[in-house]
Amino acid sequence: MTRETAGDAGEPRESVVYELDPECTAEEVEPETPYLAEINGIVDYGIFVDLSEHVSGLIHESVLEGTYRVDDELVVELETVRDNGDLSFAPADVDEYELVAVEHDVSLTGTNRLDANLGEQIHVEGEIVQIKQTGGPTIFHVADEHGVVPAAAFEEAGVRAFPAVDVGDVARINATVERRNDAIQLEVDGLTVLDGEDATDARDRLQRARDERAAPHEVDPLIDWPALEPLREELAEVARTLRRTVLEGRPIRVRHHADGDGMCAAVPLQLALERFIADVHESPEAPRHLFKRLPSKAPYYELEDSTRDLTFALEDRDKHGQQLPMLLMLDNGSTAEDVPSYETLAHYDIPILAIDHHHPDPDAVEDLLDAHVNPYLHDEDYRITTGMLCVELARMIYPDLSDEIEHLPAVAGLADRSKADAMGEYIDLAVEAGYDEDHLRDVSEALDYAAHWLRYSAGTPLITDVLGIDTDPDHHQAVVSSLESNATEAIQTQLDDATPHLEHESLDNGAHLYRIDVENYTHRFTYPAPGKTTGEIHDVQVEETGDPVITVGYGPDFAVLRSDGVRLDIPEMVAELKAEVPGAGISGGGHLVVGSIKFVRGKREEVIDALVEKMADAPIDEALSSAAPLDD
Amino acid sequence: MTRETAGDAGEPRESVVYELDPECTAEEVEPETPYLAEINGIVDYGIFVDLSEHVSGLIHESVLEGTYRVDDELVVELETVRDNGDLSFAPADVDEYELVAVEHDVSLTGTNRLDANLGEQIHVEGEIVQIKQTGGPTIFHVADEHGVVPAAAFEEAGVRAFPAVDVGDVARINATVERRNDAIQLEVDGLTVLDGEDATDARDRLQRARDERAAPHEVDPLIDWPALEPLREELAEVARTLRRTVLEGRPIRVRHHADGDGMCAAVPLQLALERFIADVHESPEAPRHLFKRLPSKAPYYELEDSTRDLTFALEDRDKHGQQLPMLLMLDNGSTAEDVPSYETLAHYDIPILAIDHHHPDPDAVEDLLDAHVNPYLHDEDYRITTGMLCVELARMIYPDLSDEIEHLPAVAGLADRSKADAMGEYIDLAVEAGYDEDHLRDVSEALDYAAHWLRYSAGTPLITDVLGIDTDPDHHQAVVSSLESNATEAIQTQLDDATPHLEHESLDNGAHLYRIDVENYTHRFTYPAPGKTTGEIHDVQVEETGDPVITVGYGPDFAVLRSDGVRLDIPEMVAELKAEVPGAGISGGGHLVVGSIKFVRGKREEVIDALVEKMADAPIDEALSSAAPLDD
Amino acid sequence: MTRETAGDAGEPRESVVYELDPECTAEEVEPETPYLAEINGIVDYGIFVDLSEHVSGLIHESVLEGTYRVDDELVVELETVRDNGDLSFAPADVDEYELVAVEHDVSLTGTNRLDANLGEQIHVEGEIVQIKQTGGPTIFHVADEHGVVPAAAFEEAGVRAFPAVDVGDVARINATVERRNDAIQLEVDGLTVLDGEDATDARDRLQRARDERAAPHEVDPLIDWPALEPLREELAEVARTLRRTVLEGRPIRVRHHADGDGMCAAVPLQLALERFIADVHESPEAPRHLFKRLPSKAPYYELEDSTRDLTFALEDRDKHGQQLPMLLMLDNGSTAEDVPSYETLAHYDIPILAIDHHHPDPDAVEDLLDAHVNPYLHDEDYRITTGMLCVELARMIYPDLSDEIEHLPAVAGLADRSKADAMGEYIDLAVEAGYDEDHLRDVSEALDYAAHWLRYSAGTPLITDVLGIDTDPDHHQAVVSSLESNATEAIQTQLDDATPHLEHESLDNGAHLYRIDVENYTHRFTYPAPGKTTGEIHDVQVEETGDPVITVGYGPDFAVLRSDGVRLDIPEMVAELKAEVPGAGISGGGHLVVGSIKFVRGKREEVIDALVEKMADAPIDEALSSAAPLDD
Repeated sequence: MTRETAGDAGEPRESVVYELDPECTAEEVEPETPYLAEINGIVDYGIFVDLSEHVSGLIHESVLEGTYRVDDELVVELETVRDNGDLSFAPADVDEYELVAVEHDVSLTGTNRLDANLGEQIHVEGEIVQIKQTGGPTIFHVADEHGVVPAAAFEEAGVRAFPAVDVGDVARINATVERRNDAIQLEVDGLTVLDGEDATDARDRLQRARDERAAPHEVDPLIDWPALEPLREELAEVARTLRRTVLEGRPIRVRHHADGDGMCAAVPLQLALERFIADVHESPEAPRHLFKRLPSKAPYYELEDSTRDLTFALEDRDKHGQQLPMLLMLDNGSTAEDVPSYETLAHYDIPILAIDHHHPDPDAVEDLLDAHVNPYLHDEDYRITTGMLCVELARMIYPDLSDEIEHLPAVAGLADRSKADAMGEYIDLAVEAGYDEDHLRDVSEALDYAAHWLRYSAGTPLITDVLGIDTDPDHHQAVVSSLESNATEAIQTQLDDATPHLEHESLDNGAHLYRIDVENYTHRFTYPAPGKTTGEIHDVQVEETGDPVITVGYGPDFAVLRSDGVRLDIPEMVAELKAEVPGAGISGGGHLVVGSIKFVRGKREEVIDALVEKMADAPIDEALSSAAPLDD
Repeated sequence: MTRETAGDAGEPRESVVYELDPECTAEEVEPETPYLAEINGIVDYGIFVDLSEHVSGLIHESVLEGTYRVDDELVVELETVRDNGDLSFAPADVDEYELVAVEHDVSLTGTNRLDANLGEQIHVEGEIVQIKQTGGPTIFHVADEHGVVPAAAFEEAGVRAFPAVDVGDVARINATVERRNDAIQLEVDGLTVLDGEDATDARDRLQRARDERAAPHEVDPLIDWPALEPLREELAEVARTLRRTVLEGRPIRVRHHADGDGMCAAVPLQLALERFIADVHESPEAPRHLFKRLPSKAPYYELEDSTRDLTFALEDRDKHGQQLPMLLMLDNGSTAEDVPSYETLAHYDIPILAIDHHHPDPDAVEDLLDAHVNPYLHDEDYRITTGMLCVELARMIYPDLSDEIEHLPAVAGLADRSKADAMGEYIDLAVEAGYDEDHLRDVSEALDYAAHWLRYSAGTPLITDVLGIDTDPDHHQAVVSSLESNATEAIQTQLDDATPHLEHESLDNGAHLYRIDVENYTHRFTYPAPGKTTGEIHDVQVEETGDPVITVGYGPDFAVLRSDGVRLDIPEMVAELKAEVPGAGISGGGHLVVGSIKFVRGKREEVIDALVEKMADAPIDEALSSAAPLDD
Repeated sequence: MTRETAGDAGEPRESVVYELDPECTAEEVEPETPYLAEINGIVDYGIFVDLSEHVSGLIHESVLEGTYRVDDELVVELETVRDNGDLSFAPADVDEYELVAVEHDVSLTGTNRLDANLGEQIHVEGEIVQIKQTGGPTIFHVADEHGVVPAAAFEEAGVRAFPAVDVGDVARINATVERRNDAIQLEVDGLTVLDGEDATDARDRLQRARDERAAPHEVDPLIDWPALEPLREELAEVARTLRRTVLEGRPIRVRHHADGDGMCAAVPLQLALERFIADVHESPEAPRHLFKRLPSKAPYYELEDSTRDLTFALEDRDKHGQQLPMLLMLDNGSTAEDVPSYETLAHYDIPILAIDHHHPDPDAVEDLLDAHVNPYLHDEDYRITTGMLCVELARMIYPDLSDEIEHLPAVAGLADRSKADAMGEYIDLAVEAGYDEDHLRDVSEALDYAAHWLRYSAGTPLITDVLGIDTDPDHHQAVVSSLESNATEAIQTQLDDATPHLEHESLDNGAHLYRIDVENYTHRFTYPAPGKTTGEIHDVQVEETGDPVITVGYGPDFAVLRSDGVRLDIPEMVAELKAEVPGAGISGGGHLVVGSIKFVRGKREEVIDALVEKMADAPIDEALSSAAPLDD
């Protein structure tokens, strides 16, 4: 582009003249460089010119020749910048020139540098991960390579600003960095959704950065245990998914079995994820809003819980513009009993990950899970507890946590009576950290007791005291000792009152069978519940009688089973009973030596008789021990 | 009034002179009009005069003659108004005059024009409908003809401003329109409770406007159904009451039966009322604060629920200064079983409206209800479902909603197995809206299933997905299909396990009697519950056996009854049993062919025997079909 | 210290010169007093000097001689203070001098004078009682002799200000008094934790002031009752502890038996403590945050409740920096059944006070309680009800309350059927206050009924209406009458249905024994529950049969007992049964003529047979009457 200057100039000279983008600021004006300017005022002592919307200045009459009219263009050069920031210009000596546009330098500010730019106008580019309409402004949560920041845009009270913008869009935001309720927040001056190549580029860039940042930390396992290796590979992928979920600003909801192993699995992940969320998100409320830990009493995902979880998720979406959550099932979630709940969520954008060590029904759940980590899928079994797996997972997500949680695999193993070879090493590790084996056992009893009375409450501060995380060691000791002694006393009371009512018979295969009517001869609705009570009774009988021993604790519509030395194969028994006792409404599960069965009340006698008949035919296998916990 | 001017004037002239009210502003000063002024300052270049508290100006010495003293009065005319708003006056040439008062023009600003007056001082006049004392200012919610706006008055932190003002007073408020937490709010400068004639006039004006606005919309019924007409007239009055309740700023609480028909009744009203509240109230939080939908599991208003509702209402009054609510009972509320709850509320200002299609006990409830709409009161019956009624009611309140809810009467009818002649037309209407009959049936099953698991939670976003309101059609389809197939599977499981235990006998009147012990031979605490389970069993037997068939599902202290082809008249049976089996604690209800009975556990056998005896005597009437739902 | 002046002076003069502390303000500069100053600027017309960071002024060139350099020191005297506060100084005529430091006069402002100092900078000194980290500033709650005020210190958003400061430290705070969310708050400019002697002095001063203010009010007892006197002395100490707890900013949680007496105990204390908290604390939210009343259904502290209470307390500590609470057990808490819960709390800083009139197990609870008030510990019994005790306690804490609560001892006594001699006087007192005896009886029935349906909810506004506190007398009358008539009707229904199933036998000792199977022959899960139902049945039999009468109401795993005229001594019976019926899991308690026993379901018959055998041997004592309530 070539044209003549509007002003009166001396010797013609061919040159480049720069035309500033209207958004350009004074910082972008270089000395000894000709710019196109427009006259916007004439006074006695000179003329005022605009170089852009933000760049204006005076040309003193002393350096002017000829006549000027407002709105005329002319070419100028920077003369001086005063202390107060005022600029003065002089006419530049150009005649014919090529006009070159100067793009406004919208250098992006990463969300990690907002503190340093407080009060300043900046640009950020990122994905919109949440849109919350308040009674006042609309709050867009923007995720760039570094983190997530809330950006407030005001249209009208309670009216959606930029209504065309959706969660998932990539946008460039021009904003002022402010403190609102004293947290960092952007005040949006402009917001443009990127499209076409810009969007693709930005999305690629964000995706690459996010992929990179989502990568799990490479940590050495706490102990050297080959059985764990294939599972650790899967856990690394889960760690990646969870880290990416945090980076995407999506909430995470953990549903976990409310027992010792479940707690040892869920609490380390809670710490790891809450800390990572705090690192990523500017809002100090983010960890509380984006993470929730929810204990489940049943050993499967009950429909009442999933319906409630779904309802809360939809309400959070409608009220706060949150994305629907990622659901993480811990020490639960592998079985066919979880399917109706999974199906309830299936048509909502709620991905589900399950980490469990209960005997799985992979065919039933596989299609409904986004990831499924279970030792049985690798020819291992319950002895690799969920707590052991999740401590490793937590370390992959947030390695700084390691020292605080390295005694937890031992607690998890003791809680679930894991007979894993690696238990010795885990206990050694805990001993090194200052916890001796007896104390670890007490921790596991205290944990089970606390979890029982907490019911549906997460109870994090009490549980972390029991686990010895982030607490004074003496206080930890005192709390554990008090809970453990109450637990032991309560167990003893159940044993004392139940044992006189234990029925014994000798089965044809030589095993001792003990039966206890837990409805009529144990205390109900207190600690320990029927499953654990049956286990405690069984343990005493095994010790007193010697193998092989089977114990059945039955209530009006259920029975819990434990065997030492007899191969029951409970899933198969359940399948057979279903066929043999029609109309008994039989369901249940477990594995070789531990399990539970449900039936309708009116068929209890028939079901238990049939069950006992099968037990009398079951093969003796003295290597088998019913270590795993019975779920109540 | 006639007197001399205080100033020195030329030729005497008899005239009118105006005296401004102290509140008058410069806008109210007309040119070429004599005003009475008072001197408040004398300077070299002239004198300053006041015409009112807000109107002052200079009389330049050049136009003055004679001597003046501060506090002297004189008559002036406006000379000039400068750009900056300063006024100058000149002495007016009047001598004897009549003084005429100029009232301050406090033209009222309707609450519908507040946005346009942001930052300005305005007057509103309205009824005080809520007074909330915060830790800071007192918030008065003021309702005028157009809407309700919060007005903040500050006396001292946490101290009640204008303590003499009560909810129900009519007041004039002088205030500045501001944005607070970015919603429109008035900052009160002055507040005067009107009394005497002013109050009467204002109240009349507000009342007229409110009456006018409360009028229900005249909408044509969705279908032409003469049976509905007398009920529609009553619904119009309910619509008027509810609209007036919103205009009065009184909260509304809906208690509804947590089943398919109850949901189809309550959700359309929720939408209609929330939208109307949003139209009327400036505060964007108003719909959430003023409307709540609460499902009830029992088919009557349980004392635990009414006590809780009362407590929350009193706390909202004490904490937030809310009026006590209007209570709307839907698909519930017509029977003697509701009376203890109604009596619990009776001495509080909580009006109750009931819309129900259960067999009513009008004598018991009439005195306790402010309105009672029930088809039985018009010689119609349960076939006009509550959902059908409430869709019409919702349309009278907020007609724009029509398109979104016109398929719901068909869902409600299918959910309650209504055999109404009009069902065909309702289904046609739904088909036109894109829902075929099979799908509507699925919706009704999915709805019942979701309501079961939601328990006491409203679950609005899930329920609207199931109902196809405000959701993507494919998503609606997927959600319904998934819930329906889980529901069907659960029902089949109950049928499979219960059917082998069904006891059959042939009654003397030729009817088949089937009994099922639902406690011992069905799965408890899962879906479907005993009432629906009994109904499903009955339906299968009717199909397999042909009429006449009676089915009794009994638990330890209750029985549910269904008949096809036998006229049981259950309310009469219950009355007879009460007399015949003393000490059995019998209660219950229902209608000709559907009902339930409660008794004490120890008298079950005796009660059921007596019941069966009556059934054997009951007349065969093949036209009768037990379509209506059994409440669990 | 002696040195020469830096300036040029006339005749040498030996003198004292004062050196201001950098914090000193202009108010601290005295006329005609020499101060050391430093030159910080030299201009044409004089030199500017600084006397402290906050005190500067001009020395006019007309009074200067010689030459001066910036940073030179010289001695000056105040010359004039202008209207705008500007100071001018003149050189002082001193040569050799002793320099004396002037301490900054940080006169402390009591938290009772903050309103008068709004916008000003002040100093307060007090104990830090709560540290809440918000997303923005850190809020320190500071308790001085007069009250508690929140003080906000900002370091960085969400970052802890003054991280070395702990709850319990004594600190001096330099702050500006502001209104935040319109409540008084300090904006911290500086905060210094006192140590050494300063800390000791301040702590002593605060302690003395707190001790003085914690002192209970000396109020005359409502009636003259010698039996009460030793208990009143203990109550005075409890009043002191509770007042001190409020002054220390520690939260208070009340757990009380959810019956009539429990309500009459807890509600007066709620009013007294909430009002005292409001007096002490600047934050209008304080009463709500620092006091909670929690009803307990069981007559002991259930583990589920204590675990929940602990969890909430720990979460309040972690989220809001609250101290762990003081726990106050009312009409509950004296027995061995409370021990597991107490032990759960034992290792947390949660002091526990119990005021109870149930038969105590002092050996079991003594070590776990910080105070234990129980009439049995003074050879009195249940006839001194908890409500009677707590009305006196409430008056010691907040005497202004007296008139509102003086009828409550009568209600408490009637609710628990106290046969205390003093009942007549309490009733007279209530009659004087306008409540006749029949009405008080109605209040006690209404209270019991409301408490039943409120379940775990405090329901304060409903309960105060029933109690006649802070409510319109007619409204109180109407509410009581409606609840009472519903209660009476419900009781009659239970009696009508239960009475035909009452089994009668004559015992060897001549007593009548009535048994009722409350599981099978009363309505369950409604009002009245089994304990009260048994009591009502018993009362009817006593009236109809005449003494001696024993009534046993039994369910599957419990029995409730009432006797008139037979000395049962239930604690002893329970102890004997434990030994005689092994494996029955027997527990329970009560006193001579009222009690309850729990057992495992399968041993019911055996336990009740053994029990009846003991009853047949029990001595007749016609003076004994089973007045006290049976806890459900």
